[in-house]
Amino acid sequence: MSEQAGAARLEVKRHRDGAAQSAADWVAEEVPVALVFNGISHAVMMATPCHLEQLAVGFALSEGIVARRAEIFDVEAELVCGGAEVRLEIAQPAFLALKDHRRSLAGRTGCGVCGIESLGLLDLSPDRITPPSRPLVADAAIIARAASELPAQQHLNQLTGCAHAAAWCGLDGEVRAVFEDVGRHNALDKLIGHLALQDASPGDGFVFMSSRASYELVRKAARVNIPMLATISAPTALAVDIARRAGVVLASFCRQNGFVEYTADR
Amino acid sequence: MSEQAGAARLEVKRHRDGAAQSAADWVAEEVPVALVFNGISHAVMMATPCHLEQLAVGFALSEGIVARRAEIFDVEAELVCGGAEVRLEIAQPAFLALKDHRRSLAGRTGCGVCGIESLGLLDLSPDRITPPSRPLVADAAIIARAASELPAQQHLNQLTGCAHAAAWCGLDGEVRAVFEDVGRHNALDKLIGHLALQDASPGDGFVFMSSRASYELVRKAARVNIPMLATISAPTALAVDIARRAGVVLASFCRQNGFVEYTADR
Repeated sequence: MSEQAGAARLEVKRHRDGAAQSAADWVAEEVPVALVFNGISHAVMMATPCHLEQLAVGFALSEGIVARRAEIFDVEAELVCGGAEVRLEIAQPAFLALKDHRRSLAGRTGCGVCGIESLGLLDLSPDRITPPSRPLVADAAIIARAASELPAQQHLNQLTGCAHAAAWCGLDGEVRAVFEDVGRHNALDKLIGHLALQDASPGDGFVFMSSRASYELVRKAARVNIPMLATISAPTALAVDIARRAGVVLASFCRQNGFVEYTADR
Repeated sequence: MSEQAGAARLEVKRHRDGAAQSAADWVAEEVPVALVFNGISHAVMMATPCHLEQLAVGFALSEGIVARRAEIFDVEAELVCGGAEVRLEIAQPAFLALKDHRRSLAGRTGCGVCGIESLGLLDLSPDRITPPSRPLVADAAIIARAASELPAQQHLNQLTGCAHAAAWCGLDGEVRAVFEDVGRHNALDKLIGHLALQDASPGDGFVFMSSRASYELVRKAARVNIPMLATISAPTALAVDIARRAGVVLASFCRQNGFVEYTADR
């Protein structure tokens, strides 16, 4: 087997039909990645150490730390002992807003929802997205095309069985770019960062993901004006609610012969 | 369909083989849950709102906020507008240690790994677990039994396709208790809390999970002395590393006809 970024090889013992034998196995890497904005460490997340610049740029945009790609002046990733550090230089107003936000959280710790520690601070009221110039409709043909094209491009998952994929698809369903990570939200951030670094417009296609649709994925998509999120597996109730309020088309259980649309007019 | 805790019913549009029709669909609920220790809000996580007392007790134990069940005097869950709050009363020394820890994080925010914001603060060096009185070996027969019994007990997932399960299994592989959640770490915390509230010994069985094995699951299991974690899907490299160092048996790709053992003697 060839080398694959984000995968490591281990000795294991395989048990099958009553017999056991030693074997080599590929597993997906999961390391702590620290995001450092203008010299100050802001967050550590567990992620697969590939496409880290894209991860950091996507995170900065999808979490609202910066509003535009142009507010990010520089991004640099470095593997450090047992993990990685990504250093970003962002525009001063965005950095001051981040510091203010941090000050308002002083003395608090967060868990699960990006440093938020009490219910009142949670942002569950998304703004509606700016509609794309060509309105996007969940269509069986384009979803079928994305669903048929994605698996062959999930290289890390083929090797390890442990990675989610976020794919950028054209309006015809063609899979144009795929990013993988042990965390689905990281996979989406990598894709969002890629689009930003390519100066691609998020209105010109849709995101197709190999995972379930959680609240967090829809919220990230909405924040960067992605008009449609399609997922292979199920959505949560909150994901549906946020998608409806933000005006993001949400299609789940997407297969080659059908899907379920959660945001159709009722 | 019957009512199911943690599920909500929605109107959707089903597309299949070229036809579309309106239908009712069940989706798993995902709401913000705030954990409040001795009156101070410590963390908010997104979780499925059932078995919230178990979730909170399990989180307190698996994150090392308390060392023993006896340090938790009271736990009370309340659904509040759009979310839930679980209030715990814990022993004063544990609460003071939590406050000290929070003070050392003052002015920082966290993401993904429970409030940790720089790499140096991350705990990647687990203590070895206290071995159970009867050493536990990954055995094809007991894993096959757990794998065959679990699906029928995943009630929320059967309805929604969106929930992970953490099952407590006897040393013979019998599935004795199942907890479900949209988050796999929450499902495990609910199970850990259940064991603690029942005064059950974590050394008397193993955990079988419907998900992949992430770093976080192994770390939580190790902290409460669970001797074996078996998962249906793949592990990450860090999960394997932590399991080997903590002395937790890790078996993944667990099916009725085999599994892969990542912690066998090499």
